[in-house]
Amino acid sequence: MKIVLIGANGTIGRAVRQELEQHHEVVSAGRRESDIFVDITSPESIREMYLSVGEVDAVISATGETYFGPFKELTPQTNDLSINSKLKGQVNLVLIGQHFIKDGGSFTLTTGIIMEDPIIGGASAAMVGGAIKSFVESAAIELPRGIRINNVSPNVLVESMDKYGPYFQGFDPVPGSKVAKAYVKSVEGAQTGKTYRVY
Amino acid sequence: MKIVLIGANGTIGRAVRQELEQHHEVVSAGRRESDIFVDITSPESIREMYLSVGEVDAVISATGETYFGPFKELTPQTNDLSINSKLKGQVNLVLIGQHFIKDGGSFTLTTGIIMEDPIIGGASAAMVGGAIKSFVESAAIELPRGIRINNVSPNVLVESMDKYGPYFQGFDPVPGSKVAKAYVKSVEGAQTGKTYRVY
Repeated sequence: MKIVLIGANGTIGRAVRQELEQHHEVVSAGRRESDIFVDITSPESIREMYLSVGEVDAVISATGETYFGPFKELTPQTNDLSINSKLKGQVNLVLIGQHFIKDGGSFTLTTGIIMEDPIIGGASAAMVGGAIKSFVESAAIELPRGIRINNVSPNVLVESMDKYGPYFQGFDPVPGSKVAKAYVKSVEGAQTGKTYRVY
Repeated sequence: MKIVLIGANGTIGRAVRQELEQHHEVVSAGRRESDIFVDITSPESIREMYLSVGEVDAVISATGETYFGPFKELTPQTNDLSINSKLKGQVNLVLIGQHFIKDGGSFTLTTGIIMEDPIIGGASAAMVGGAIKSFVESAAIELPRGIRINNVSPNVLVESMDKYGPYFQGFDPVPGSKVAKAYVKSVEGAQTGKTYRVY
């Protein structure tokens, strides 16, 4: 398969790429050090990405910024960072991509455990996760031509504990290699509308 | 209690108002025919609403526009209607209101059954519902001073069947008077972080 992986240089993206490259052609897309440039906060940039990559069998989004910080300091402005990047960015990859992806293709988006197991400082990111999960479930019943859509909801990653450990006290981190398998399941399997929890 | 009800003229809002007015002072807020003007798509307008209404014990949002239509016609632009109104509007009522509401006060937001039981044409609205539900669960663990937050997730209303019936085939509509009781439970009860399903 030909797979576009947005966010291939992130912690999850690197693990997903390593797993999928063994059997598929993986085209990386992102703002830096990628095969194709894309800024997911811009619908026009997403459209250009699809035009330049040509027909693909699978689109994986392992990207999107979110705001972390105390709830009392969360403002309409800081919350917009999460909405414009991880929420609208991922949703727009599907809304635009539905017209480009091959018959029987798949979209795999990324959510996270805190959408259903909240942590201090994570309200904005949890909001995005909940949005993506419900969007995926709805999109799945309408996508035509056998196109599928799922989301992967990882726990905090072993590889991210340096950066996010203090937020995730008591959570049992999972290795990126284990999370990557859920993306493989989404791409190579036949299910749609699913949330693959890797907790 | 003094309660601000945003969207008091909507189908849900009217039912909620009728129920709460029996025991509380209800101040209506909205773009039309309300005690106080507010446009929830504008953080500045929300701030002005809180400044003009004075201290309140409860904030109820029964408002917010969403886009309904076939998934293949859903675009980044039409999806923005839902994000700017029902998603950011409701979230910003809390982000700004947390600094105005009284000790022990409560926020009650509105989601809907399709966030977990999808219908054709409802992906954008479902996305918003999922976002609000996860946001509420996260906000609940951080709000200070005994402030609570919940959301009410109604089925399609009996009173809305003329307008929305064709979208909700097979759903068992509930009367507005029954949905209103869930808002009363949220305001007068002691729970927080809950999704009150009226299905």
